[in-house]
Amino acid sequence: MRYEELTIEGRNAVIEAFRAGKPIDKIFILDGCQDGPIATIKREARKGDTIIKFVDKERLDQMSETGHHQGVIAYAAAYEYAEVEDILALAKEKNEDPFILILDNIEDPHNLGAIIRTANLAGAHGVIIPKNRAVGLTATVARTSAGALNYTPVAKVTNLVKTMESLKKQGLWFVCADMGGTSMYQLNLKGPIGLVIGSEGEGVGRLVKENCDFIASIPMKGNIDSLNASVACGVMAYEIVRQRLS
Amino acid sequence: MRYEELTIEGRNAVIEAFRAGKPIDKIFILDGCQDGPIATIKREARKGDTIIKFVDKERLDQMSETGHHQGVIAYAAAYEYAEVEDILALAKEKNEDPFILILDNIEDPHNLGAIIRTANLAGAHGVIIPKNRAVGLTATVARTSAGALNYTPVAKVTNLVKTMESLKKQGLWFVCADMGGTSMYQLNLKGPIGLVIGSEGEGVGRLVKENCDFIASIPMKGNIDSLNASVACGVMAYEIVRQRLS
Repeated sequence: MRYEELTIEGRNAVIEAFRAGKPIDKIFILDGCQDGPIATIKREARKGDTIIKFVDKERLDQMSETGHHQGVIAYAAAYEYAEVEDILALAKEKNEDPFILILDNIEDPHNLGAIIRTANLAGAHGVIIPKNRAVGLTATVARTSAGALNYTPVAKVTNLVKTMESLKKQGLWFVCADMGGTSMYQLNLKGPIGLVIGSEGEGVGRLVKENCDFIASIPMKGNIDSLNASVACGVMAYEIVRQRLS
Repeated sequence: MRYEELTIEGRNAVIEAFRAGKPIDKIFILDGCQDGPIATIKREARKGDTIIKFVDKERLDQMSETGHHQGVIAYAAAYEYAEVEDILALAKEKNEDPFILILDNIEDPHNLGAIIRTANLAGAHGVIIPKNRAVGLTATVARTSAGALNYTPVAKVTNLVKTMESLKKQGLWFVCADMGGTSMYQLNLKGPIGLVIGSEGEGVGRLVKENCDFIASIPMKGNIDSLNASVACGVMAYEIVRQRLS
């Protein structure tokens, strides 16, 4: 297992983590802090596409595990991220049409872990998540993935739409899971495919949806709105598996 | 919403809850406590099939929300349980072949909530859970079910195997999700059906499995063992939906 430290607290520790090239997802800095080390941390964070959040002392104190945060707490990824190219290379290596899960802002680490687990077992070649707002590869995600993070590459990208456009040029079709689309049983989901799953609360974002080739719906018989995000992902991923097998 | 108090602390409060007919899932009693009120509580618990656990003072103190447990803490169901007959009646009312989910010891409340949500949307008429070891209808389950608990009946039974035997006499077939069975895509899953899902760690118990008519497997391509229980349940429930629709 490639677990790493999850929380890094204190100025020197955070600066060292950046210099060691650790993937830092998010940094929380005490609002108003403007001295030299903090300026260095902000500069490093911007270089590496790390999200910076300014918070008050109470919040930092709550988050702190050591009690010595010195005005800064960093969240490092528990796992290393892959590149989108690694995912395509994996498909090529297996001599299969690419099958990629694209997650538009999944926020619950249990859902992300369960989805990576599903990706592994359904034979998807990787998972793409966006940098902003979504949960990253935290220790909870790693645990919930039941080991799948050791095998299934997860790439984090700045702009989902741009990544999708580039993947389209390489022959992928995109299908997004949303209400009001065609029943997934009536769509042809074979071939090189990207399956787009929306966030728990808001579904798939407008721009991302507009970039999809199909909108596929899971037939719903009940009284409530939607399936749990990881269940919906599993149901649709396995419709792709079924069509690929038949 | 039919939410009720989740935790009941103190001798009188617990005795009153029993007398008011509240469904109590579990009772934690201070080990060694043998006075009159505690004896009454034990008697009431045995009448109502409540599970009794004897624990030390430290454990009770940890569990206590009020700090005044007086040696006893009861966990009431957040929702009322239905009867198996209610589930069959719902199928009859809708003029549909019964479609029931049977959960063999799901322990994670998030999984149970997601499964009840899936049951509702896949058009299952209800969910059956066992009394022992499994998680009951706690507040977390209710929240994770996203409202589905208001519509989909959940019955709690003492002995899953006996319940299955009785349902078989009423025409149900049972299919259990497990490794090493026939691919679910090759089985006929139409007609009155009970879908059996095993626990997170151990899968479906031996006796329960022996009472199933089919073992259905979800095709697995990856490196790890199994899907998350609620995802596996969703994938298989929707294969039943697909076959019923076709």
